[in-house]
Amino acid sequence: MMATPRPTSREPSPLDGATIEARLKALAAFTDVPGEMTRLTLSPAHKQAAAQVADWFRAAGMEQVHMDATGSIVGRYAADRADARTLIVGSHIDTVRNAGIYDGTLGVLVGVAAVHELHRTGRRLPVAIEVAAFADEEGARFLSTLSSSRAMAGRFDPACLGDVDSHGISRAEALRAFGAPVEALAACVRDPTETLGYVEVHIEQGPVLAAAGLPLGIVTGIAGASRANVRLTGEAAHSGTMPMTMRRDALAAAAEIVLAIEARGARDVAPASLVATVGTLGIADSAVNVVPGEVHFSIDVRASDDEVRRAAVADISQAILAICARRRVTPVVTFGHEAPAALCDPGLRDRLAAAVERVGVAPHFLPSGAGHDAMVFAGVLPMAMLFVRSQNGSHNPREYAAPGDIGRAAAALHAFLLALADDA
Amino acid sequence: MMATPRPTSREPSPLDGATIEARLKALAAFTDVPGEMTRLTLSPAHKQAAAQVADWFRAAGMEQVHMDATGSIVGRYAADRADARTLIVGSHIDTVRNAGIYDGTLGVLVGVAAVHELHRTGRRLPVAIEVAAFADEEGARFLSTLSSSRAMAGRFDPACLGDVDSHGISRAEALRAFGAPVEALAACVRDPTETLGYVEVHIEQGPVLAAAGLPLGIVTGIAGASRANVRLTGEAAHSGTMPMTMRRDALAAAAEIVLAIEARGARDVAPASLVATVGTLGIADSAVNVVPGEVHFSIDVRASDDEVRRAAVADISQAILAICARRRVTPVVTFGHEAPAALCDPGLRDRLAAAVERVGVAPHFLPSGAGHDAMVFAGVLPMAMLFVRSQNGSHNPREYAAPGDIGRAAAALHAFLLALADDA
Repeated sequence: MMATPRPTSREPSPLDGATIEARLKALAAFTDVPGEMTRLTLSPAHKQAAAQVADWFRAAGMEQVHMDATGSIVGRYAADRADARTLIVGSHIDTVRNAGIYDGTLGVLVGVAAVHELHRTGRRLPVAIEVAAFADEEGARFLSTLSSSRAMAGRFDPACLGDVDSHGISRAEALRAFGAPVEALAACVRDPTETLGYVEVHIEQGPVLAAAGLPLGIVTGIAGASRANVRLTGEAAHSGTMPMTMRRDALAAAAEIVLAIEARGARDVAPASLVATVGTLGIADSAVNVVPGEVHFSIDVRASDDEVRRAAVADISQAILAICARRRVTPVVTFGHEAPAALCDPGLRDRLAAAVERVGVAPHFLPSGAGHDAMVFAGVLPMAMLFVRSQNGSHNPREYAAPGDIGRAAAALHAFLLALADDA
Repeated sequence: MMATPRPTSREPSPLDGATIEARLKALAAFTDVPGEMTRLTLSPAHKQAAAQVADWFRAAGMEQVHMDATGSIVGRYAADRADARTLIVGSHIDTVRNAGIYDGTLGVLVGVAAVHELHRTGRRLPVAIEVAAFADEEGARFLSTLSSSRAMAGRFDPACLGDVDSHGISRAEALRAFGAPVEALAACVRDPTETLGYVEVHIEQGPVLAAAGLPLGIVTGIAGASRANVRLTGEAAHSGTMPMTMRRDALAAAAEIVLAIEARGARDVAPASLVATVGTLGIADSAVNVVPGEVHFSIDVRASDDEVRRAAVADISQAILAICARRRVTPVVTFGHEAPAALCDPGLRDRLAAAVERVGVAPHFLPSGAGHDAMVFAGVLPMAMLFVRSQNGSHNPREYAAPGDIGRAAAALHAFLLALADDA
């Protein structure tokens, strides 16, 4: 057991929201594109950010701070006993292009802060705490994503090493340039019998907590998702010469389908938080004076209940067929990506709720419509998530979490860790 | 008066549809893009086609065959008297990209054929016939269009000489390279007191005649058109985290508007042949997992009755405001191009109908939803148009007019010209 330094009374608590916000802003300096927050996985800016994060891990009292085979920075705060199990606290420090500074990074720095406060106050717990700054969550560079958390969960797909970015650089090449020990993949895998679980703090990325006036929320599960690409083929025609009654307008058919998808999504809002979205739509060879002959669009359906999601997908598929038959338009619907819902562990979830209550916030439970590193642990390790109220969504420069809310999240995570000792 | 050659009994009539079709195919060899029919105005392929057309004009017995200041080929078949007025028969020989071989060119070659038959049979009429192969109707190269027919109608806008193509070449430069006597613009203008009118034969570009089982149709007028660009601003959001009830989905708003425009267009089908079309639509920064925050699209409304068109535009504008208000989406509607309907001259129209009847076809009257060179003469000269049944619309390689229908059109135009003599 290492000696821990004495806290000095003048030192601010690492749990202070403004302190964590200052670190978020400092880390934002590491960007691939000056003037915006773009830190693609395994980029030079990511490497600088990883080095900074590793320094903070060490300053927080963590040992064995290292880069793993996927480029993640992982540090360990030892337990008060030798045979203790490990709790993993993680999130990611890669970003999408032109991102905000909170998505992912906030969860890593809140984890560092909670450990730092244990260290500052000389506390060791009956469990070891590992903090992970995952390298690859956003999927903005390679085809595949979540490779870091997958490696830890024992679900790493070696095929992803061959995925290339838009410059033709493979993930394997990028990992080597990043300095990651690619050969040490097996060392990433955590033994479930030795691991207590995985906890992640993250901004909500949605408006639910803000609308409810709550700084924190406890996640019930991560929604499952179905995605499809649809191509509608009608008949292109001159907009002036083709009478309305003889048209086979692919865009009008798509418009009817967009509204049917919207209406079906709105039908099962509670309790499964169903959402259904057409995010992309394009017209082939479009012109102001041409009746659209071919339209393609995407469908994204999510729900925290897989049955609710599958029923919505079935209804939407039927609506597409009915609308197209009536309009003499030919649909081709290709379902691609499908991910089942990942339920949070009830035990860890309720411990998080108790910790939230302990810092003076009424517990509010909500599902996560977005995917997170946490979901790859479902079925492998107990997993739980704490959401922090966010403004302006996420994946844009305007995303925002207030310092007060960040501080509450850090205090709640710290309380959650302390409670592990009480319960041990 | 020139001597006219004797017809030989072995020579096929120039009015024969197969003969005209053979010339259409021969002219299709002059293309800017080998393998497809692309003959942009004032291009090298256009220059070759113009030379070939000029040869055919001369072979048809026309005098004063020349290129005018806008690049059109114009020939004159003199009248049987000195003080005769002139009838202009015209269409265009430029095409869109990847076009068919009939749009425009068919009308020029039918005009040549009718004059050729007069020449072959030694007929002179009490009116002179001028055939024009206009250089610029499609507008596929420069911003402006219809400059050739406008010059003839006395409506040429000199500003169009400065319009540049995608390579930065101005119309003035292109005209000089083409060999057109740009300085002779004033010579293009026809004196309305000396001109009987303008007649144009053209493929229908729509399905009406084909659906009615009729080879020819007499045009009542060319529809007026209103165009607008619309931008809708809602709120971009994560498709998984933004609940359906809190969305401001710009695409869903656009979809509702597309259907409202379609329904309003279908309300006044008869007798004004109203059509309303959304031909282009795009989503800013779209992604499969992003609720669309900004959508732009075009509106194209046409009708042969300007009041009917304006009423539809007003209703559509109101529908946009109502839909957007309900959905908390901000619309910006910018009306651009507006062209009034151009009515065909009742006298010429009925003469065309009589000629059609004379060649054994029941007269069928229909408006033109597409714009044509003919429309620029409205208000300046009596104007009329004859439509030929077409398959597969137009502006694509599959557009088609059957040789039998082409022959009927040529025979009808010839009969129309002969009737001018009877009526003189």
